[in-house]
Amino acid sequence: MALYVQKYGGTSVGTVDRIEAVADKVAGFKAEGHDIVVVVSAMSGETNRLIGLAKDIQSAPNPREMDVLVSTGEQVTIALLSMALDKRGISARSYTGSQVKILTDTAHMKARIQDIEVSSMQSDLEAGRVVVVAGFQGVDDQGNITTLGRGGSDTTGVALAAALKADECQIYTDVDGVYTTDPRVVEGAQRLEQITFEEMLEMASLGSKVLQIRAVEFAGKYKVPLRVLSSFEDGPGTLITTEDDSTMEKPVISGIAFNRDEAKLTVVGVPDVPGVASRILGSISRENIEVDVIVQNVAADNTTDFTFTVHRNDYDAAEKVLQKVAEELGAREVAGDNKIAKVSIVGVGMRSHAGVASKMFDALAAENINIQMISTSEIKVSVVIAEKYLELAVRALHSAFELDADDTVSE
Amino acid sequence: MALYVQKYGGTSVGTVDRIEAVADKVAGFKAEGHDIVVVVSAMSGETNRLIGLAKDIQSAPNPREMDVLVSTGEQVTIALLSMALDKRGISARSYTGSQVKILTDTAHMKARIQDIEVSSMQSDLEAGRVVVVAGFQGVDDQGNITTLGRGGSDTTGVALAAALKADECQIYTDVDGVYTTDPRVVEGAQRLEQITFEEMLEMASLGSKVLQIRAVEFAGKYKVPLRVLSSFEDGPGTLITTEDDSTMEKPVISGIAFNRDEAKLTVVGVPDVPGVASRILGSISRENIEVDVIVQNVAADNTTDFTFTVHRNDYDAAEKVLQKVAEELGAREVAGDNKIAKVSIVGVGMRSHAGVASKMFDALAAENINIQMISTSEIKVSVVIAEKYLELAVRALHSAFELDADDTVSE
Repeated sequence: MALYVQKYGGTSVGTVDRIEAVADKVAGFKAEGHDIVVVVSAMSGETNRLIGLAKDIQSAPNPREMDVLVSTGEQVTIALLSMALDKRGISARSYTGSQVKILTDTAHMKARIQDIEVSSMQSDLEAGRVVVVAGFQGVDDQGNITTLGRGGSDTTGVALAAALKADECQIYTDVDGVYTTDPRVVEGAQRLEQITFEEMLEMASLGSKVLQIRAVEFAGKYKVPLRVLSSFEDGPGTLITTEDDSTMEKPVISGIAFNRDEAKLTVVGVPDVPGVASRILGSISRENIEVDVIVQNVAADNTTDFTFTVHRNDYDAAEKVLQKVAEELGAREVAGDNKIAKVSIVGVGMRSHAGVASKMFDALAAENINIQMISTSEIKVSVVIAEKYLELAVRALHSAFELDADDTVSE
Repeated sequence: MALYVQKYGGTSVGTVDRIEAVADKVAGFKAEGHDIVVVVSAMSGETNRLIGLAKDIQSAPNPREMDVLVSTGEQVTIALLSMALDKRGISARSYTGSQVKILTDTAHMKARIQDIEVSSMQSDLEAGRVVVVAGFQGVDDQGNITTLGRGGSDTTGVALAAALKADECQIYTDVDGVYTTDPRVVEGAQRLEQITFEEMLEMASLGSKVLQIRAVEFAGKYKVPLRVLSSFEDGPGTLITTEDDSTMEKPVISGIAFNRDEAKLTVVGVPDVPGVASRILGSISRENIEVDVIVQNVAADNTTDFTFTVHRNDYDAAEKVLQKVAEELGAREVAGDNKIAKVSIVGVGMRSHAGVASKMFDALAAENINIQMISTSEIKVSVVIAEKYLELAVRALHSAFELDADDTVSE
């Protein structure tokens, strides 16, 4: 008998029929004797409909009122799901973020959770009720409705699981787990039984859009076991948890992540004096452009080359800023390429295994793929390559690290 | 400089364009220096859409969750109207019923207001803000969302006006005031400048669906001046207020109300002994059938005839019950007619004028309209006639009491 916090996203509650299916699923867990707290998103399309109404009035709608508006989306879902449970003879009670109450700061449209009152929910659980909570929303200390930003329902689920000391936070979505890489690119991509929070963060930030990064961070911080499962088919999904020493056989690399939306920029021949990196990046961040990989090589003949990547959409803006900075710094020129992609191998296993990076470079060299940039972290090695080689590189690495379905016996 | 509580119904806020028009209207009042509290309904069609979703799940949806669901309708409108005001440079703040807070009992879907906290709204008004409140909803002492029942936004407006001691509660609707009778029946029907709460109650309950009866009762009880105006065209509307002694010239009759949805039932030849009326009506009310006019004549030869009217939809059910009761009472038979209508003349002026009733009967007799039942109150005389004479009777009375546009000089 466990306490599960289950989060169902917009697609999982997108129609009345799907809400009924969620109610069936919850009823099944109840019948097994578990305590269930359900967190739901707005029905798919509803949030966009509401935002559309607002944008018809104001191009940049008042943030406080935006939160009043969009928070109705989840409120509709909690009511409908509670009715569907009631219909099945299961006592349920819905809660808006204010009713819980999920206390946040006042940063409308991107609020952060500060505290969660659990007493009412606990009384309901003790009375045998299913608790149905509106995801994505909270309330500040003045009683203003706030939202956590789009996709924030995952965060609500994890925060509730932490506050209620739940046995597991289960994120139901339209995929059946986290894969070794994108199955659309590599046919042999496999679902992972288990992955660590750190690996998941690296995978998530590199484009596996299964889970919100914030929710994973939150879960890691509070050590809430997180499971990604499919709303539409049964299966164990993927458990995201702290590193488990008992998994001796854990492969060195858990997955191959990639991102094709990048562009790189190089300031060539920068004088090698202190403060240069800060002046270059400072000018970029003042334009609200986010930088991903940064590489600077050792200097030769008193100048150096400074290279970094940005989102492809920011390429033109970044280049314009750099031209000015380069002139001020007396740099030789600004070079760039917006037809690049980043490929990364991710795995906590690489901490204790030498030779992972060289194996990666060998695999790419064998396919004649030139590596333009390299960046590493403790559990990740990323390379920047020409975009046209992306799929080839991902497949080669997936195979080199024996992640293909043919290579390993399914657990 | 006055404080107005203005209520805009679903049609008045039915689209983004109409919400913008309401914002223009409110901006105009603000520019004149008035303090404004706006109460809004859900955008027209939205409440029915939400109820439809619920009914797809449960034929009799859980009342608590129904309130959570439908209260989102007004919440959407308050956010959008606040944005539209913000766009016009007018500082505005939206409030749900919970945020106000409008404290109600726990009777979900038909809650009654118990108390209203005015401090936050007053601070906003003092700071020059327009306060935008979701109509129709409140919160019980446990924090559960409640609703006042359909159309309850009028009641919210009046209750807020009473609590804030507003100078006037203005109900914006799709008609430009209260008329002497239905203009679709009598071409010469005229807008009334003023009408008393009591007259309005008699008019409202008899089918002039301009205002919710509860809101009028509430306004009368707390002496809140109530004005009905059009959202779509300018004009003074109709002021509903306490009797004004200064209006010497007030006509005897303010208006002609009618209702064609009635049916009458007679228990013929009931023994004239105590307790008969209570046994007959008790059996009807146990079936949750509402009774309107009741007439019992003096007895002849120890038996009497007991007649009453019900809504036409309840005719069959009422007859079935009566057959059984008639048998138990030893009554002769049950007779009935579901092709009847009720016509009433309403006016506080009739208190001090003799001969009003006879003038009414004369006018009907002149058209050869047979009167089947008569019922009177201090400010009203109602007659039941065959339905086919309804329009003829209304026109005859409207003319007899000199209410036609040709007869009186517009005030």
